[in-house]
Amino acid sequence: GTRAQKDEWLALLMNGEIRSAFLMTEPFTASSDATNIETHIVRDGDEYVINGRKWWTSGAPDPRCKIFIFMGKTDVTAERHQQQSMILVPRDAPGVTVKRALHVFGYDDAPHGHAEVLFENVRVPASNMLLGEGRGFEIAQGRLGPGRIHHCMRTIGVAERALEKMCTRLLTRTAFGKRIADHSVWEQRIAEARTNIEMTRLLTMKAAYMMDTVGNKVAKSEIAQIKVAGPRIALQIIDDAIQAHGGGGVTKDFGLAKMYAGIRTLRLADGPDEVHNRTIARLEMKKYQDLTQASEGELKTLDVPRS
Amino acid sequence: GTRAQKDEWLALLMNGEIRSAFLMTEPFTASSDATNIETHIVRDGDEYVINGRKWWTSGAPDPRCKIFIFMGKTDVTAERHQQQSMILVPRDAPGVTVKRALHVFGYDDAPHGHAEVLFENVRVPASNMLLGEGRGFEIAQGRLGPGRIHHCMRTIGVAERALEKMCTRLLTRTAFGKRIADHSVWEQRIAEARTNIEMTRLLTMKAAYMMDTVGNKVAKSEIAQIKVAGPRIALQIIDDAIQAHGGGGVTKDFGLAKMYAGIRTLRLADGPDEVHNRTIARLEMKKYQDLTQASEGELKTLDVPRS
Amino acid sequence: GTRAQKDEWLALLMNGEIRSAFLMTEPFTASSDATNIETHIVRDGDEYVINGRKWWTSGAPDPRCKIFIFMGKTDVTAERHQQQSMILVPRDAPGVTVKRALHVFGYDDAPHGHAEVLFENVRVPASNMLLGEGRGFEIAQGRLGPGRIHHCMRTIGVAERALEKMCTRLLTRTAFGKRIADHSVWEQRIAEARTNIEMTRLLTMKAAYMMDTVGNKVAKSEIAQIKVAGPRIALQIIDDAIQAHGGGGVTKDFGLAKMYAGIRTLRLADGPDEVHNRTIARLEMKKYQDLTQASEGELKTLDVPRS
Amino acid sequence: GTRAQKDEWLALLMNGEIRSAFLMTEPFTASSDATNIETHIVRDGDEYVINGRKWWTSGAPDPRCKIFIFMGKTDVTAERHQQQSMILVPRDAPGVTVKRALHVFGYDDAPHGHAEVLFENVRVPASNMLLGEGRGFEIAQGRLGPGRIHHCMRTIGVAERALEKMCTRLLTRTAFGKRIADHSVWEQRIAEARTNIEMTRLLTMKAAYMMDTVGNKVAKSEIAQIKVAGPRIALQIIDDAIQAHGGGGVTKDFGLAKMYAGIRTLRLADGPDEVHNRTIARLEMKKYQDLTQASEGELKTLDVPRS
Ligand SMILES: Cc1cc2nc3c(=O)[nH]c(=O)nc-3n(C[C@H](O)[C@H](O)[C@H](O)COP(=O)(O)OP(=O)(O)OC[C@H]3O[C@@H](n4cnc5c(N)ncnc54)[C@H](O)[C@@H]3O)c2cc1C
Ligand SMILES: Cc1cc2nc3c(=O)[nH]c(=O)nc-3n(C[C@H](O)[C@H](O)[C@H](O)COP(=O)(O)OP(=O)(O)OC[C@H]3O[C@@H](n4cnc5c(N)ncnc54)[C@H](O)[C@@H]3O)c2cc1C
Ligand SMILES: Cc1cc2nc3c(=O)[nH]c(=O)nc-3n(C[C@H](O)[C@H](O)[C@H](O)COP(=O)(O)OP(=O)(O)OC[C@H]3O[C@@H](n4cnc5c(N)ncnc54)[C@H](O)[C@@H]3O)c2cc1C
Ligand SMILES: Cc1cc2nc3c(=O)[nH]c(=O)nc-3n(C[C@H](O)[C@H](O)[C@H](O)COP(=O)(O)OP(=O)(O)OC[C@H]3O[C@@H](n4cnc5c(N)ncnc54)[C@H](O)[C@@H]3O)c2cc1C
Repeated sequence: GTRAQKDEWLALLMNGEIRSAFLMTEPFTASSDATNIETHIVRDGDEYVINGRKWWTSGAPDPRCKIFIFMGKTDVTAERHQQQSMILVPRDAPGVTVKRALHVFGYDDAPHGHAEVLFENVRVPASNMLLGEGRGFEIAQGRLGPGRIHHCMRTIGVAERALEKMCTRLLTRTAFGKRIADHSVWEQRIAEARTNIEMTRLLTMKAAYMMDTVGNKVAKSEIAQIKVAGPRIALQIIDDAIQAHGGGGVTKDFGLAKMYAGIRTLRLADGPDEVHNRTIARLEMKKYQDLTQASEGELKTLDVPRS
Repeated sequence: GTRAQKDEWLALLMNGEIRSAFLMTEPFTASSDATNIETHIVRDGDEYVINGRKWWTSGAPDPRCKIFIFMGKTDVTAERHQQQSMILVPRDAPGVTVKRALHVFGYDDAPHGHAEVLFENVRVPASNMLLGEGRGFEIAQGRLGPGRIHHCMRTIGVAERALEKMCTRLLTRTAFGKRIADHSVWEQRIAEARTNIEMTRLLTMKAAYMMDTVGNKVAKSEIAQIKVAGPRIALQIIDDAIQAHGGGGVTKDFGLAKMYAGIRTLRLADGPDEVHNRTIARLEMKKYQDLTQASEGELKTLDVPRS
Repeated sequence: GTRAQKDEWLALLMNGEIRSAFLMTEPFTASSDATNIETHIVRDGDEYVINGRKWWTSGAPDPRCKIFIFMGKTDVTAERHQQQSMILVPRDAPGVTVKRALHVFGYDDAPHGHAEVLFENVRVPASNMLLGEGRGFEIAQGRLGPGRIHHCMRTIGVAERALEKMCTRLLTRTAFGKRIADHSVWEQRIAEARTNIEMTRLLTMKAAYMMDTVGNKVAKSEIAQIKVAGPRIALQIIDDAIQAHGGGGVTKDFGLAKMYAGIRTLRLADGPDEVHNRTIARLEMKKYQDLTQASEGELKTLDVPRS
Repeated sequence: GTRAQKDEWLALLMNGEIRSAFLMTEPFTASSDATNIETHIVRDGDEYVINGRKWWTSGAPDPRCKIFIFMGKTDVTAERHQQQSMILVPRDAPGVTVKRALHVFGYDDAPHGHAEVLFENVRVPASNMLLGEGRGFEIAQGRLGPGRIHHCMRTIGVAERALEKMCTRLLTRTAFGKRIADHSVWEQRIAEARTNIEMTRLLTMKAAYMMDTVGNKVAKSEIAQIKVAGPRIALQIIDDAIQAHGGGGVTKDFGLAKMYAGIRTLRLADGPDEVHNRTIARLEMKKYQDLTQASEGELKTLDVPRS
């Protein structure tokens, strides 16, 4: 951002006096493809006028949240990845309405939470534009890696806690003549849990190391890999831990149902699994583009049995 | 029950004026093995005195719930399956405290709900005993089949609704240049959903038909099969439907997260999957008991290569 | 076919003197999309001239196989589903070379087997054409249902045998102080096997019943469903049975590895899973076409929170 | 071994003139629990007399295989893990009969292969005993780590090749109007394959590093983890690659079916998955033994709702 932007907001954010929220996703369009975004940011003299509806604005319900980083379209005629811009919008600007807090599997995640926010002719000074019109994607790309590493580390921590709870419970309860832990299906589940946690942790460490040494861009596939693998593996472990607790597993007493709900959102937030897998697959297939052309011709001229 | 019991409670239950709840599960012992149950029902003159703690008493938070069917131990020295008895306990008997409503994920399932209930020196007339002391298991066996068929049919209905929502959503949203439905991974998921629903429905119909014609006991394996298969299949479909809805999937707007939470409990309520699978497996293995003895000897005398 | 075709071949086929083979799949083009087929059938006076290469011709290595039902292109300019024709080709016609028998996981499936067959300027009388030029797809559609039911029934039979072998083995061997059957992970696997067999059998019966009563076309989705579900379920059971046999499972002694190889081909033969799932999904989504248009509009006009 | 043993065999083994085979598994007893082993090694003066039957002797069919490392029971009255001993048996000793080569799926893995071997009153000098009577388990423990790392690295290499073949094939074939690679279900499979390969490779490297630095014993869980995870992940990838190749996948042309058969044996050879998972789970649960006792008491005294 510009010096003025930094003066106004960054200092406050940094010392924790206020918080920000990031507004990309919209309720009425498939936002996992960010080119679909429909809210308009229209220049009008020294100001931009913003209209539209956002949802899943994490942190917005928190009263300390004072500033929105808002993504919308400034130029619908530009090249597809140059239409979007990011702009700062104070939460208390006239025309901004936080319509409701969204629930996650019955939990409101208060006080933090996630909101649906309506923008009706909201006006902000032109100087609130970040980097410049049309650079929304560019900014979005830059900020994602560290967040994903962070999420994945937290996810592994949650999986560890779930595995600990699972073992403890199974070791302290007896059914059908032996400790539940001694019913061998649980050996298989615990072993798989431990193996999967180890593997995910190592992959996360590799991705983090790559980010630090060769950068986000080269680590693109690895970052996407942990984004998908972390929640997948953790959800299986938490679900097993719920099962291990019997009825207790789904209630509040052991925190497991809430863990499940929280981690389940990570298969969606920050881009759904399918889109990250798409990224990984495309990078993978790139390796074979040349090979491909060669081997097609080769195959066709093969005239003798290939056994 | 006796005529007196029927006069007092059954009429009111039948015409819907009041409701009952069933109390087997206890928080401090693995209740999937019902022989573990620890609450005591002790004869004292013309009365029984009840002490202990129950939880997951479905329906208890509802003010219309007036009568408890309570399972506990009358004779700890009897043969393992003759120790338990069932007895009627009015909800407003002195010493009964509904401590709290339990949450399922973040939902309280109000007004119906599930409760934790404490019994402190609760006294009921001896005539409240059902069938007679030591016959708790016998009663429990009889009532389970129909409930499971009912649950499974409802589960299939929920799965159908989830599939409908999934298709509708995928057909109405566009990402990366085509309808999300046209990304072929969804073809595979929708097809699997439809196939699994058909299979589960047919198995449920078979189990219901067997119950009506040859009875609960002969249909034991089939009833256990749908008890496990129904929720397993439905949960996969609901989870896919959640994923299809993006962020919308986990919130209240489409009802899917609540469906998930509700069906997830059915892998626990009325006995966990593992215990029903155990029943199926034991019935299956019974078929081979004879064969088994034969083939062991046979194997040992084999002296020539068996290719 | 015509009377002459029937006179010549059908009588011999019917009384088992000779056998036929069906030739659609080609090695150098993705044949799961039959419109890709490249072999040419070109009219030349009273004859057709055939050039191309086929493989996976089941039955061709068997010396009793005397007649080929051959699918190829007669008109590359026609509408996509009218380009193909089926024609009878005697196996001993000049220019026909059976190049090799194909192996399935190391097995040659002799004497029946599957062949790669080369056609070089093979000439057959014009009267060998079935139904008429351009009607290849039409013929292909008609013949598939019964074959699939048959395959699926056989698959279920194989799964039953595998489950029987699994139980027998686990009951007759002891490891780590108890029968292997008593290590509870096997309870879970056996129960799942039994449940899945029951469900697949019922679905196969439903599909067969529908074929008989309402016909192939209405039963299209159900036939595709069992085509995919049967092998999927059987492979899991056979794989578990292999595991239950330890080293013995992968060798010839118990027949399980060969079962696996045989059933594995059914996820490909007669169209791969993905293509059948595509069929099921498209029929499913058709139900929602109207609904779809409605709800899109509906969604957009929603202005209030939808909780 | 002793100096004499080393003089006789080790030199020849080291310079590749001859090969050895390892004989633990027996056809008539569950050998995944090595305490079950039944062949007898009985002292008779200066010799040991060996009787019994072994199978899955890898390498025995190869004519270069000249020496057997044989495990059997010397003392059936000793403590369970002290009954077994290892002894050297020349393959051409009188009474040794290689009965047959075993097939893996349809492959004979010649010339290397696996054999069933019969021992009838085979006599070897007492000096052939390794380390001393009763030390069979001790020797077995020591040698396993490096072999497993080696197998797992090879498995990852196979998985990489399968993924390469899968991508190449999908990129060079067209079905239903687009490259098969562009049917999005393949994006999901390729992405999962890449992610799983990365994770398994890192875990194998960690296990290898631990073996080198802290030794086999401390790395016990990690070694077991890769023993199970490697084949599990590779089999999924190879199976997908088979599917990607259509009919071609199951035959010899692309080597995939043989890869599958080979890797499938690794879920059995050197101990089945279930036994390694048991090891991992037991090490995991050890961490909670103390905690366990504490929390049981704690739970019971809890008197207030725990929400
Ligand atoms: C707890 C939580 C917190 C969040 N916080 C924020 C936030 O702070 N700021 C913010 O802007 N957003 C936030 N989000 C929103 C999140 O980023 C979006 O939900 C996500 O990007 C998906 O967009 P969508 O919900 O519009 O789903 P859609 O784009 O409608 O996608 C629906 C589904 O379609 C499928 N799909 C999409 N593309 C493909 C494809 N190529 N192939 C196959 N399938 C495909 C996927 O399964 C996807 O889940 C949050 C979401 C959650 C749940
Ligand atoms: C929504 C809901 C409604 C309910 N309603 C009622 C009600 O109205 N009345 C009532 O009495 N109860 C009710 N229950 C309780 C329910 O019946 C019990 O939760 C269930 O029987 C399991 O008992 P538990 O919770 O004590 O689990 P535990 O017995 O402690 O078992 C914990 C876990 O151990 C595992 N396990 C157990 N045995 C084996 C085995 N042999 N092999 C392998 N693993 C095993 C299973 O994974 C199981 O989930 C309800 C539960 C829920 C969630
Ligand atoms: C044992 C056996 C017996 C057979 N017998 C006969 C016979 O007698 N006569 C005969 O003509 N043929 C026979 N076949 C061939 C069989 O019908 C073909 O193998 C099958 O139709 C697939 O065609 P293909 O091998 O060319 O695979 P391809 O068309 O190259 O397809 C390769 C893979 O691409 C994927 N794919 C294709 N379409 C899609 C899609 N829309 N979405 C996602 N993925 C997709 C699938 O995974 C498929 O397996 C036999 C095959 C086997 C294995
Ligand atoms: C290709 C190949 C090469 C081999 N090479 C050699 C060799 O060179 N030398 C040699 O001595 N052996 C060799 N083996 C044999 C191998 O080590 C044994 O097959 C393996 O140890 C299992 O023993 P088993 O076959 O007797 O199975 P069993 O002991 O009969 O076990 C059968 C099944 O029971 C189940 N099981 C066992 N214990 C448990 C448990 N605690 N909980 C749950 N389930 C359980 C497992 O699923 C197991 O697969 C080889 C095997 C193969 C396939």
